[in-house]
Amino acid sequence: MAVTAWEVEGDIDYAKMIKQFGTQPMTESLAGRLKKPLPNFIRRGALFSHRDLDKWLAAAESGKKITILTGRGPSNKMHIGHLLLYELAKYFQDAYGCRVYIPVSDDEKFFVKEGLSVEDVEKVAHDNIIDILAMGFDPKNTLVFMDFKYTKIYRHAAEVAKHMTYSMAKATFGLKPEQNVGWSFYPAMQSAHVMFPQFMEGAHNVLVPIGIDQDPFLRLTRDLTDRFKFIKPSTVYPIFLPSLSGSKMSSSAKDSDTTVIWLADDEKAVSQKIRKYAFSGGRASIEEHRKMGGNPDIDVSFQYLKYFFEDDDKKLKGMEESYKSGSLLTGELKEYLIAKINSYLKGHAKRRQDVERNLDKYMLED
Amino acid sequence: MAVTAWEVEGDIDYAKMIKQFGTQPMTESLAGRLKKPLPNFIRRGALFSHRDLDKWLAAAESGKKITILTGRGPSNKMHIGHLLLYELAKYFQDAYGCRVYIPVSDDEKFFVKEGLSVEDVEKVAHDNIIDILAMGFDPKNTLVFMDFKYTKIYRHAAEVAKHMTYSMAKATFGLKPEQNVGWSFYPAMQSAHVMFPQFMEGAHNVLVPIGIDQDPFLRLTRDLTDRFKFIKPSTVYPIFLPSLSGSKMSSSAKDSDTTVIWLADDEKAVSQKIRKYAFSGGRASIEEHRKMGGNPDIDVSFQYLKYFFEDDDKKLKGMEESYKSGSLLTGELKEYLIAKINSYLKGHAKRRQDVERNLDKYMLED
Repeated sequence: MAVTAWEVEGDIDYAKMIKQFGTQPMTESLAGRLKKPLPNFIRRGALFSHRDLDKWLAAAESGKKITILTGRGPSNKMHIGHLLLYELAKYFQDAYGCRVYIPVSDDEKFFVKEGLSVEDVEKVAHDNIIDILAMGFDPKNTLVFMDFKYTKIYRHAAEVAKHMTYSMAKATFGLKPEQNVGWSFYPAMQSAHVMFPQFMEGAHNVLVPIGIDQDPFLRLTRDLTDRFKFIKPSTVYPIFLPSLSGSKMSSSAKDSDTTVIWLADDEKAVSQKIRKYAFSGGRASIEEHRKMGGNPDIDVSFQYLKYFFEDDDKKLKGMEESYKSGSLLTGELKEYLIAKINSYLKGHAKRRQDVERNLDKYMLED
Repeated sequence: MAVTAWEVEGDIDYAKMIKQFGTQPMTESLAGRLKKPLPNFIRRGALFSHRDLDKWLAAAESGKKITILTGRGPSNKMHIGHLLLYELAKYFQDAYGCRVYIPVSDDEKFFVKEGLSVEDVEKVAHDNIIDILAMGFDPKNTLVFMDFKYTKIYRHAAEVAKHMTYSMAKATFGLKPEQNVGWSFYPAMQSAHVMFPQFMEGAHNVLVPIGIDQDPFLRLTRDLTDRFKFIKPSTVYPIFLPSLSGSKMSSSAKDSDTTVIWLADDEKAVSQKIRKYAFSGGRASIEEHRKMGGNPDIDVSFQYLKYFFEDDDKKLKGMEESYKSGSLLTGELKEYLIAKINSYLKGHAKRRQDVERNLDKYMLED
């Protein structure tokens, strides 16, 4: 398993990742402190690790200033694998009434992707931002910016850059001399993103919902916060929703059109993909399935229901049991999921329209 | 003689520099094409080298769009050694009626100088800008910006960065892994400064008056302009006004208070410094001087008159001859220069006040 900052491949062993990145495992007592109601995936154990979540919660519980930060690298259109992270950020905003900052690293994608113009990246970024905001962030308490449109961020990035040597950045980002100097600088920009709430509002506890594969960047930032008398940001890591084939969902994978459900997919595309490509934990034949039962733990459709699309715990439990017993067939499970996803995406498309009309309420620009 | 981008030391052999940097020597026919009246130092042969000045002049002569670009790294307060460069830029603005762009690299100084805050650098930059503008740039045709206050420049720097590998930047700037990532990125920022007139006004001929020690940066930029379909910027290099001791004037030298006349020096400081420290081409005693004569070519006071402070060619010629013959003593020459400098600095202080009141006419800010 190779986990670098730029790519994640292969099946994922979360216990191994906790060990590898040196993060803290989520505990029942800590999860128990989270305000209710919890999103499906937290309730069902998919918030598997953190750093200093307890400190952030302590600040929240004692009425101190707290904020949330979660970013987006606009490499491509968004898919359902991205939903957990933003759902998580939105949960904290709703539950704790705090501001959410969402920096969008158009510059990073511009530096890293060959042959892409600034305009290309901005188009993707714009579309991504609408997807993220359509998840229901509070327009009065959410600030989104793109580095190329809120260029004031450069000054903060420079302040961070002063304390980050090329060696440090290289150790975390694996920089190579043949890569452009945008790559060299970007680690400072990313740290500035993470520190941005504190640059804007002074030292306080910030919680960063993030993919654990991005943890090396966070650690780099945590090593620098002392320079600014800031508080080390806390982090929470949700699991990765699997791709249709069962591996980590990746929008940049070559086979993404058969492994990923895009937020922009229409009903037909969703039906076809789930039917054709969603890895099944069922048996080879209906007869065998009825007799032996299926395995929901490796069934991608079931995972999608469990970690996002099925709100009803009882119903989920029931489906799990009948799948195991063989009374629920893969085909039936898939049709149920298809209806759930399509209903969600229909609502999403509607919310996108609302957000697009009010985009300036969220955006920080020069 | 070590000439890197970051430091210039020792006496300077201009012919050697032309060879070293691969620039073109100034020719009589080219200098003859420059519109009159010429500043003292051009008339007296101190514009010693260039790249593609002929192309810029051809564009100017055929009525095409032309601009001037000259920057400032705000490392310290300014001294009379800086006057030639800005006098040169102003000459081109006056003679050819074109716009002058003056980017001020507060970010570079912030990255490079240990222990300096952004505020420290901005204070110096602000003061430098007033000094530069006090030389008489046209408020209707001059645009000045600091990277930290006109952060939109970041987007252009990023566009350049995409085409500049760390290896390329390292080859020009001598980057080291233990230096911060601001240094790594700054070469792209500096190239963006040089291309800025073309980013703003489209491809056209830009002339860059610059110290020849900065030529490696310019060459790096010239190698990148094709990527943007821009025209390679032309350059002109004035000689360096010597320090009081005869070496290159440096505001960062440890002994700068005895080798440099600051633009902010008062009359007393100027008198004391010239009397005490200005290297003399005169003889050891008055008797010897009267008998053998002095050497104006190595006399710092004479150089100051020749390259900047004495407008009257006849008078200068007369002084040169009487110094050589011994009828003009070092002390007399120095008193004459002191009066000239103090008169200039008095006018400069007055012009600074005017500029300060109207600073927003020149400044490009977010």
